[in-house]
Amino acid sequence: MGQTLTEKILDDHLVEGNLEPGEEIGIDIDQVLTQDTTGTMVWLQFEALDLDEIQTELAAQYCDHQTYQFDFKNTDDHRFLRSAAGTYGAYFSRPGNGICHNVHKENFAAPGKTLLGSDSHTPTPGGLGQLAIGAGGLDISVAMGGGAYYVEMPEVVNVRLEGELPEWATAKDVILEMLRRLSVKGGVGKVFEYTGPGVETLTVPERTTITNMGTELGATSSIFPTDDQTYEYLSRQGRESEYVELEPDEDAEYADEVVLDLSELEPLIATPSMPDNVVPVSEVAGESVEQVIVGSCTNGGYGDILPAAKMVEDREINMGTEMIVAPGSKQASELLAREGWTAEMMAAGVNFSEATCGACIGIGHVPASDSVSLRTFNRNFEGRSGIENDSVYLCSPEVAAAAAIKGEIIDPRDLAEELGDLEPPGMELPDSYDGSKSDIINPGEAIDDDLIKGPNIGDAPIGEPLGPDIAGETLLKMQDNITTDHIIPATSDILKFRSNIQKLSEFTLSRVDETFAQRAIEADSGVLVAGENYGQGSSREHAAMCPQYLGIETVLAQSFARIHKANLFNFGILPLQIDTETYEQISQGDDVEVVTNVAEAVDTGETEFTIRINDEWEATAILNASERERRILSAGGKLRLTKEQYENNTGGAAPADD
Amino acid sequence: MGQTLTEKILDDHLVEGNLEPGEEIGIDIDQVLTQDTTGTMVWLQFEALDLDEIQTELAAQYCDHQTYQFDFKNTDDHRFLRSAAGTYGAYFSRPGNGICHNVHKENFAAPGKTLLGSDSHTPTPGGLGQLAIGAGGLDISVAMGGGAYYVEMPEVVNVRLEGELPEWATAKDVILEMLRRLSVKGGVGKVFEYTGPGVETLTVPERTTITNMGTELGATSSIFPTDDQTYEYLSRQGRESEYVELEPDEDAEYADEVVLDLSELEPLIATPSMPDNVVPVSEVAGESVEQVIVGSCTNGGYGDILPAAKMVEDREINMGTEMIVAPGSKQASELLAREGWTAEMMAAGVNFSEATCGACIGIGHVPASDSVSLRTFNRNFEGRSGIENDSVYLCSPEVAAAAAIKGEIIDPRDLAEELGDLEPPGMELPDSYDGSKSDIINPGEAIDDDLIKGPNIGDAPIGEPLGPDIAGETLLKMQDNITTDHIIPATSDILKFRSNIQKLSEFTLSRVDETFAQRAIEADSGVLVAGENYGQGSSREHAAMCPQYLGIETVLAQSFARIHKANLFNFGILPLQIDTETYEQISQGDDVEVVTNVAEAVDTGETEFTIRINDEWEATAILNASERERRILSAGGKLRLTKEQYENNTGGAAPADD
Repeated sequence: MGQTLTEKILDDHLVEGNLEPGEEIGIDIDQVLTQDTTGTMVWLQFEALDLDEIQTELAAQYCDHQTYQFDFKNTDDHRFLRSAAGTYGAYFSRPGNGICHNVHKENFAAPGKTLLGSDSHTPTPGGLGQLAIGAGGLDISVAMGGGAYYVEMPEVVNVRLEGELPEWATAKDVILEMLRRLSVKGGVGKVFEYTGPGVETLTVPERTTITNMGTELGATSSIFPTDDQTYEYLSRQGRESEYVELEPDEDAEYADEVVLDLSELEPLIATPSMPDNVVPVSEVAGESVEQVIVGSCTNGGYGDILPAAKMVEDREINMGTEMIVAPGSKQASELLAREGWTAEMMAAGVNFSEATCGACIGIGHVPASDSVSLRTFNRNFEGRSGIENDSVYLCSPEVAAAAAIKGEIIDPRDLAEELGDLEPPGMELPDSYDGSKSDIINPGEAIDDDLIKGPNIGDAPIGEPLGPDIAGETLLKMQDNITTDHIIPATSDILKFRSNIQKLSEFTLSRVDETFAQRAIEADSGVLVAGENYGQGSSREHAAMCPQYLGIETVLAQSFARIHKANLFNFGILPLQIDTETYEQISQGDDVEVVTNVAEAVDTGETEFTIRINDEWEATAILNASERERRILSAGGKLRLTKEQYENNTGGAAPADD
Repeated sequence: MGQTLTEKILDDHLVEGNLEPGEEIGIDIDQVLTQDTTGTMVWLQFEALDLDEIQTELAAQYCDHQTYQFDFKNTDDHRFLRSAAGTYGAYFSRPGNGICHNVHKENFAAPGKTLLGSDSHTPTPGGLGQLAIGAGGLDISVAMGGGAYYVEMPEVVNVRLEGELPEWATAKDVILEMLRRLSVKGGVGKVFEYTGPGVETLTVPERTTITNMGTELGATSSIFPTDDQTYEYLSRQGRESEYVELEPDEDAEYADEVVLDLSELEPLIATPSMPDNVVPVSEVAGESVEQVIVGSCTNGGYGDILPAAKMVEDREINMGTEMIVAPGSKQASELLAREGWTAEMMAAGVNFSEATCGACIGIGHVPASDSVSLRTFNRNFEGRSGIENDSVYLCSPEVAAAAAIKGEIIDPRDLAEELGDLEPPGMELPDSYDGSKSDIINPGEAIDDDLIKGPNIGDAPIGEPLGPDIAGETLLKMQDNITTDHIIPATSDILKFRSNIQKLSEFTLSRVDETFAQRAIEADSGVLVAGENYGQGSSREHAAMCPQYLGIETVLAQSFARIHKANLFNFGILPLQIDTETYEQISQGDDVEVVTNVAEAVDTGETEFTIRINDEWEATAILNASERERRILSAGGKLRLTKEQYENNTGGAAPADD
């Protein structure tokens, strides 16, 4: 039987398990990337592993989230990251050089390689035939140490592209159409593999817009085969030697198929406040627009911004609208500046920004109250822009630029008709991406050989091996659907403590109960109780790390969100499932004792744990955990386990079993 | 007797008083400018005056301080400012278009005119022969309503420039040398008038660097005569018709003279943390530098940034140093982009920013802890950069760029010798300043005819006419030298409430006593007691407005800072001077009653007020106030007084007596 492209790459990198959907597999990681809000903890954990240098072919540290450096803690983080990259042998991309996904694509992404990144849009270089997956920070640290990455083998879905994009339709409309059809949950546990005759009509920058925003489908990753377009792109970047021909076997079997005729697409837009609320632009035309932002890792490349630049050239941004262009990378900025487009955009009234994630994560250019913002970004979750009750639409740069000119949402085809002289800009690539590489510090040239830690940079906490007894007060009883934003908020006033677990933990669950952290510190141990779907949302491991730091040893919940449960294991917290009756009977303040010998039960594969409440009544709680997860728990978390494994090996070679 | 240039312009605009140093004069204002952190209150006060449109020749509203728009409140403020400018007939400069002083210089500054601005660096266009003075927001509102501006007639000091700047010395070194000689207090109550043969050797952008930073001398203003350089600059801006020949009479008499031989200057630098800590760069050479920023209203023009661009072209910013260029205006950004310099700077590793005040006021690019930052700004007060114990140096773009290349402080002449191929960049102007004007909304084209107030935008509070009785508890007893930063902090978490006095007042004196505001709200009235020099620091009127809002009716202090005392009058708070003995005897919590009939005593010119403490003992407190100040106090503040005057006149014509 033939293999899909995904299977081929996985097969090449497989160190454990079988390529059966749903089964856990361990794979070798060639490249890793980290950014500034997750990267500090990645390196602190790497430091705790006591290794001399990274074991992957390549690691790259980017500074993109907090590049405005509002607080010295941000600047300190950047300096620390430079020192860590230098010390351990990673590339360092300086603040201002752009968003990790864009800069990685330009400089390092390579067909056929695996990439693990501590950011959810890591799948971006799938557009170049790289198999790229987002993961938690500790997974990155372990991978950098040479450890395998464990993931559930995804289903591979064939997205067959036919035809060619008509004028004014773009790659953004391809992924918006996917979201319209499949919804934000449509990709969970899947890799989308793009095939068919439409593929060759799309340039690599267009492909990466699609793979980047595949994350919004909930997909594990998205990937394109390689072809002349890939070769072209790599050679324009001066990296044609990294080209590898990659395609699925003709008789590859897919779990599912989606057929998408590019020629039938039209300008689409995701209305507030979910990326799958997709309608044709014409359906919401006439809505007054106060802000337009072109940029982000989805549409921040030279090829993305150029169409908007062409559209606004010799025109003026509507007086009631602010248009901001935030390039995805310095390379894009520099090329646009060199060819005069930056000056033209400025002349039209565009506010040209540093290359940063910025507004996409609610940092800067927060929309005005009760106003509409059109953005070429990938997410419009409510409040993400920095203001509650926001009204953020997602669209292509063409649709965004049309709104900036008109001052209201308008199908660019209609605007072209109205103006008479507005040509469809199309997709145009530069002869070569001769943008600067001076903002990347090569590990061979690094100036640092030791870590530089500012006063806000702590150490990575290492858990204690699981003991026989767990007991404590129920410090908090929560409802269903507690998110990681409830557990550790990500607003910028709190985000700046990401490298300081002691300080960050003071905000733990503050959105549920402001007194929780203080009570937990005073109690020095304790138990959390929650309803269904505890820990849904982002993959941030701080949501497990901080409770662990506060002394929480077990969470009793009716059910757990998948990634957060993995994080609980990783940080040595016992996730026990309780039934509705037990949930209802436990009250906040109750004393909970796990009667079962915990260490022994975890080791021996026990699933049923007896818990005793207030010394009055008992119930059974369930531990659903794989053997690997039990080993992690037993060791006191993945960091300690990995550290021990590395210490028992010689020189930090990759341990076979983690 | 001949007149100085300053006297000529003042004479032309005099509506009250005589040009005798120290005497209060009233002058007509031709132009006003406001920025975003002071402008919202200016317009709210203008709204309270119930006038239909501005009465000055020109008013311009800029958005420059909070252009990163971290919070929707910033964006709402910008929208409100656009709507106010449109409604009342002012020019509106969009966020991203640059710093008020730079944009005003480019577009509106005119020789011989008076300019009043709600920003301390308003004197910048003195380099073009405009008499420009910084003032509090309410003064701007009143001037826009057609009212005169009252100021103590300054002494005029002749700064005689001789010779010509040698290579690598710049206009920044001229003003740094002035600061070295005269100190930050050397200009109090003075206007510096630049004369002599050296004047013609300086271009207008060089002159405005000097006049801008004249503020750091404590000067009321600084001014240059007009000449071919002025004509040249104006015609490059397409405004040659606004040229007026202006110079002092040959027999003008000056209060003092400073002689400065340009040819003797060398690269200078202000060391932490005061702009007058000036030494030759060579004296501090070798100090490692982590951050370099070129920009600000002092050195953010095309002519300022170009030398730095030439120096870093085809080189690389040192790996241990971050270099950020933040142009002062879109015009500068656009010209640099159009001529390829932006691309060259990016290629060298420069992070190119939006045009904003930004880092200069501690908003963004806060230095790392325990690190040196070199900036081409005008102020390096401790903590202003956003981190306590900062280490900020002020210098020319040339010195800044040299440090960015070398990674440490170095005299650029030494760097030139080291590198062999580094030419002195000199001062070069473009053929024409053909940068965009599309970011300025002309009042004739404005889209707004009504105010748009977001939920954070309140009304300007209007005081109540002074009554006979003032009595209340001593809510706070303070030490000497309480600054306006103590009274109303200006950190960005508080700054965003500048248009919301109700909310802002919650932070009143929080740096002295966190409970104060709450206690004042509960008490509903009360008295403040302070030592010497109460209210020193910035001119921010919020430091009077917020206590007034909280019900404070009198401040008893051993002495008052000049501008803050004027603000207390303006907001209807009685400033009473007490002697040391009285200060020492009053305790926090004491009940204070002004026994004298306050309204009557203020009206009749009484200077001695009897105060009674705890119904136990009495003391005498002194009111030092001019007749004009007594009228303001009596009316319940300047806003109410002006409002009444305008209502009694027809159509808001300028009242002669205020």
